[in-house]
Amino acid sequence: MSLTGEMLIGQSSVAGSRDPIHAINPSTGEQLEPGYLGGTAAEVDRAAQLAWDAFDQYRETSLDARARFLETIAGNVEALGDELLTRVMAETGLPRGRVEAELARTCKQLRLFADVVRSGEWLDVRIDSALPERQPIPRVDMRSRQIPLGPVVVFGASNFPLAFSVAGGDTSSALAAGCPVIVKAHSAHPGTSELVGRAVQKAVAECGMPEGVFSVLFGSGREVGAKLVADNRIKAVGFTGSFSGGTALMAIAQQRNEPIPVYAEMSSSNPVFLLPSALSNRGEALADGFVSTLTTCAGQYCTSPGLLIAEKGQALNTFITTAAAAINQSATQTMLTPGIYDAYEHGVTALSANPRVRTLAHALASDAPNQCRAALFAVSARDFMEDDSLHDEVFGSAALVVECNDQTEVLQVAECLEGQLTATLQLDEADLDAARKLMPILERKVGRVLVNGWPPGLEVGHTTVHGGPFPSTSDSRTTSVGSAAIVRFLRPVCYQAVPDNLLPDALKERNPLQLKRLYDGKWDL
Amino acid sequence: MSLTGEMLIGQSSVAGSRDPIHAINPSTGEQLEPGYLGGTAAEVDRAAQLAWDAFDQYRETSLDARARFLETIAGNVEALGDELLTRVMAETGLPRGRVEAELARTCKQLRLFADVVRSGEWLDVRIDSALPERQPIPRVDMRSRQIPLGPVVVFGASNFPLAFSVAGGDTSSALAAGCPVIVKAHSAHPGTSELVGRAVQKAVAECGMPEGVFSVLFGSGREVGAKLVADNRIKAVGFTGSFSGGTALMAIAQQRNEPIPVYAEMSSSNPVFLLPSALSNRGEALADGFVSTLTTCAGQYCTSPGLLIAEKGQALNTFITTAAAAINQSATQTMLTPGIYDAYEHGVTALSANPRVRTLAHALASDAPNQCRAALFAVSARDFMEDDSLHDEVFGSAALVVECNDQTEVLQVAECLEGQLTATLQLDEADLDAARKLMPILERKVGRVLVNGWPPGLEVGHTTVHGGPFPSTSDSRTTSVGSAAIVRFLRPVCYQAVPDNLLPDALKERNPLQLKRLYDGKWDL
Repeated sequence: MSLTGEMLIGQSSVAGSRDPIHAINPSTGEQLEPGYLGGTAAEVDRAAQLAWDAFDQYRETSLDARARFLETIAGNVEALGDELLTRVMAETGLPRGRVEAELARTCKQLRLFADVVRSGEWLDVRIDSALPERQPIPRVDMRSRQIPLGPVVVFGASNFPLAFSVAGGDTSSALAAGCPVIVKAHSAHPGTSELVGRAVQKAVAECGMPEGVFSVLFGSGREVGAKLVADNRIKAVGFTGSFSGGTALMAIAQQRNEPIPVYAEMSSSNPVFLLPSALSNRGEALADGFVSTLTTCAGQYCTSPGLLIAEKGQALNTFITTAAAAINQSATQTMLTPGIYDAYEHGVTALSANPRVRTLAHALASDAPNQCRAALFAVSARDFMEDDSLHDEVFGSAALVVECNDQTEVLQVAECLEGQLTATLQLDEADLDAARKLMPILERKVGRVLVNGWPPGLEVGHTTVHGGPFPSTSDSRTTSVGSAAIVRFLRPVCYQAVPDNLLPDALKERNPLQLKRLYDGKWDL
Repeated sequence: MSLTGEMLIGQSSVAGSRDPIHAINPSTGEQLEPGYLGGTAAEVDRAAQLAWDAFDQYRETSLDARARFLETIAGNVEALGDELLTRVMAETGLPRGRVEAELARTCKQLRLFADVVRSGEWLDVRIDSALPERQPIPRVDMRSRQIPLGPVVVFGASNFPLAFSVAGGDTSSALAAGCPVIVKAHSAHPGTSELVGRAVQKAVAECGMPEGVFSVLFGSGREVGAKLVADNRIKAVGFTGSFSGGTALMAIAQQRNEPIPVYAEMSSSNPVFLLPSALSNRGEALADGFVSTLTTCAGQYCTSPGLLIAEKGQALNTFITTAAAAINQSATQTMLTPGIYDAYEHGVTALSANPRVRTLAHALASDAPNQCRAALFAVSARDFMEDDSLHDEVFGSAALVVECNDQTEVLQVAECLEGQLTATLQLDEADLDAARKLMPILERKVGRVLVNGWPPGLEVGHTTVHGGPFPSTSDSRTTSVGSAAIVRFLRPVCYQAVPDNLLPDALKERNPLQLKRLYDGKWDL
């Protein structure tokens, strides 16, 4: 497939009219062809109208037809094969193994949502049957189901060009819910976005879906992104990116005549608590595991471990010495974009210059462009608690050791953390009491608590919570990964005394879709 | 119990220091004793700190202990008996039958949430067990449950002094979820709020709950209400009231360092579609049902039918003639407060003065204070669609007939409606095709669709949806009434490879709480 540099609006390919967006190969600094001319208000309007026109039909497609649509997308994306892998690597600098794994995850995720759709559990069918003899007043027949919110805008993420972009978790869960999707492609990987977008566009046609169910727009955040979120035909937003980007979208969504939900996954430092016995028994192994995690793909994960919290002492010193030596010798790695590289350098420079902070390790520089040099810093718990700037995420292979005087200070540090996607406990049997004190605090702060692991490498399943209190996300009540992500795009509707021949199939008395139902307070299947 | 005029902060009674708030008996205009001195930032701080301190303990109370707490509240509120009924009637002008029914509903609701808590289904326990042999990478043990958000502020509603106030739906669902509650009492019924508040306060002590789990504050919205919503220890807000009040709280909640969810139920005109065959076959009966609903309790329901939409013609004329005659002869009724009466008069006067609007009926005036005179107006569909002011709710016994030229115009009017709590179809067999065209539009606009009923008299059950798209509520994804209301105050947490002896009981492998669980993708109970 040759790339055209066009936007995909429904079944059409449309050239933009604004300045061209070119991907940069971050490993070489070279500009990649083709250029993608940015969209304008006209393309936003056209995509939004198509999405709106498609909504009522798409949301009532059969569960099987919708599931097959998701499976067809997965197949079409897989069929892109090496052309896709090559383009992703060129646009992101990510190594082939990582891109292959991300592609597999993206397709697995689409198929997971196909299964979710078919099960129909997300419809949450409930029936309270009529009780005409009830005293003092009869009960009329009441039934409820979940329906989709409406067209959804998805913002592609820089760090997961497949799994959190055009056909990623937000898109697949929104399509599963019955929502048309308009993707605002990330400007760092437009070619990847076009390739995957065309795979989805083809699936729309192959499955006979209304064309407006899917579009991909290119352009600036201000012109295309903001206009999409402000458009009254858009009913929800999915976003993975920076705190400033996410909060800007939240503000636009709140200022609309009809405010809409924004699911923004923004920032997280992912604290790791090194508990005393674990640190003492296996400090060197922990240091190896930590450095290996920190330096994978230049630490460009939402869940990269950016904070290490431990009590001072010999065990922590051993950990630090081991980790620092490994970091000092670690190879540099290409970051996703020049912008991300600049932000990383800025963050690391600010930490180095902070008089409260000690630099423990910093990998050697390289001549290649956009190279992440892993870095490790330390600060006292007191200074950490007093300096809010130390709580900000530095996106990349940088971490800060917070040195505590005692267990009380560890708990104080935990309590002063902002909302996080994850918290990790490195513990041995003798640490359980300390862990029990930390758990209630961490539960309040994070979406996922891990023991004796490292937070990246998130499993996509029914239990997955990729979410957490603000500012890690804009809405702690949900997850952006895993089967439960579908609920973000649903709302309940109750049908009171609606005759059977006017009810949607999901609610008909004879249960033609064979759905699990809460019937008079009991699940009947 | 003699009323003291004090706030309830945990187990203490605390006198405020601001201007006293006095209830007014709206039937007589007389001021009721005692005065309630308003609270200040000091009381907000004290209640918020107590709530925060109580949270970690309260959220881990056993399901049975928490259920018994809710049942104890119900029993204590019931035990207030005639003293409570008398005070409610004096403070609201509502008739005894209505107050008795509301009291029964309030206690039923508390007991419903006790059952909900005991079932444990709201914990949404999910387990994806470890798959150490899986290729290419093993799966670690992952478990998830829902945990409560934190302390919740509940604003008492003027029109339901029991069911939507101190121990109403918001309070009972938040307590059920494990959230401490601080009630900002409505200034129209402070005595009712004190009585019910003391019943809850007593239950806290009787059940050995941490005292901060419940407080009641009096005072101004600006001083007490706004400060509560802005307080960083508060994690969610429940509100039933005006559009201006609800949107003001949304703005405060969004401007916090940590934005929090606001569940505001605000305004709804509750359109009723009179379909041609039903109108022709039983227009007079429909008119009787409509006027009876419109004039019950001065129409002071969130779900009062404020819009009637029908095709022009003889059948509609008959309906209008019958309804107008009944309204002209209807007795006036006392409204809840002088402020609500003024707003009603203002709304009706604006409709009367609107050159696009015809006044069809207006009940005669009365000498008593704060009397609602039911009113009926008509407007053409075209004028309705052109004049946004006609879409605003007039709270009270006022309704507007929207006269359409044909079915197409009926559909256009439906499409131009804002979000609503309810929509109603009055239909006969021959109207089913017309109803099928309306359904997809109405589903997008409302939280509850009724057929051949009238929207007030909401059933409190598992299927209940008292919610809807903005501006009827601030968050269409939820309901403020019924068992599903508990999910408003919950968020998921995932536990990855957490050893059994560190897991909460709900997630332990041997399932000590005997909960329904999604185990490896299948419900195991």
